[in-house]
Amino acid sequence: MAVETYPIELETRGTNEVIDLTPRVKEILRRAGISSGIACIILPGSTGVVTTIEYEPGVVQDLVKAMERVVPRNIHYHHDAAWGDGNGFSHVRSALFGASFSFPFLEGKPVLGTWQQIVFIECDNRPRKRRLILQLVG
Amino acid sequence: MAVETYPIELETRGTNEVIDLTPRVKEILRRAGISSGIACIILPGSTGVVTTIEYEPGVVQDLVKAMERVVPRNIHYHHDAAWGDGNGFSHVRSALFGASFSFPFLEGKPVLGTWQQIVFIECDNRPRKRRLILQLVG
Amino acid sequence: MAVETYPIELETRGTNEVIDLTPRVKEILRRAGISSGIACIILPGSTGVVTTIEYEPGVVQDLVKAMERVVPRNIHYHHDAAWGDGNGFSHVRSALFGASFSFPFLEGKPVLGTWQQIVFIECDNRPRKRRLILQLVG
Repeated sequence: MAVETYPIELETRGTNEVIDLTPRVKEILRRAGISSGIACIILPGSTGVVTTIEYEPGVVQDLVKAMERVVPRNIHYHHDAAWGDGNGFSHVRSALFGASFSFPFLEGKPVLGTWQQIVFIECDNRPRKRRLILQLVG
Repeated sequence: MAVETYPIELETRGTNEVIDLTPRVKEILRRAGISSGIACIILPGSTGVVTTIEYEPGVVQDLVKAMERVVPRNIHYHHDAAWGDGNGFSHVRSALFGASFSFPFLEGKPVLGTWQQIVFIECDNRPRKRRLILQLVG
Repeated sequence: MAVETYPIELETRGTNEVIDLTPRVKEILRRAGISSGIACIILPGSTGVVTTIEYEPGVVQDLVKAMERVVPRNIHYHHDAAWGDGNGFSHVRSALFGASFSFPFLEGKPVLGTWQQIVFIECDNRPRKRRLILQLVG
């Protein structure tokens, strides 16, 4: 049995930036001591989302518009009233759509579709330095 | 290789109660025989959600309002027409937002942000006794 | 430590077909060489969702209506404008609601509620052959 832990560091520009993590995930898996198992990638934080999408400009724009529609930025948030951060919507988006994503890996590669990428969606309302953690067991 | 299984028992008050599981999760990890790996927490049931959020009264209220907006309680549900339980919305919320959550743990601690808590959201329309399962592999 | 990988093959009819994977998952776990651990099931693809729901015709219909309401089919999608596939909504649904689902298993059985089933939701706008991957570690 083995467990390995890898940080993935990002500098984001703020709300709705969608960053493709797949090249870094693939590079980590290529060099990892474990070849097959389950991987879990998490944002240790409460204003971002990890998921998969076809990383193509059109879909990325569609996803961002959907998040704006489902969890709008410019309605009243109690969090903002109490703390003045202006990022109530960011917290709600993260809670609804998920701050972690798990996937199988096999022979040093993630089990993903050809046009499926693992992405981080910055939901916060300002640029952030992010340090995601990719944990492998297998 | 090791696998460990822990129940987390709750008594909920009904729709939209959001319960912070983090203290219990931390206590389990502190005493566990496995120090690093991946944890998966699930509601064995179809009317609840497990996710992460900053457990602060404002955000919790915002999350609850978002769920009411996205999956309203008072529209027609076929489930209610057939079974009369009145909890069609509870089932849909659980399916869309997820009955399980996975996260890495490291040296006996969950990999989470400082203001990020693991929560159970009761979606059912009545008080429930819940027995979530936290599984560790590592 | 052990890792086992199983394909689950499906032929779907297109948008909004909801397929109960539980019997196949149970059969795989019954025969697997690992009795306890964490399982991760993923669609290697970007137009489907894996989650849990009470697999009952009413709830299934309610879920489908909720997806249509939250991520409508007939609004403008940039993906469609660029690629003409007509499945922009399919991609967005998959990204928001998740292409993978993880759950614990114990003594050869998935940890699920009595009325909780693991389902695949076809979000694409045409029939598809799908090959999901179920990975076990434990």
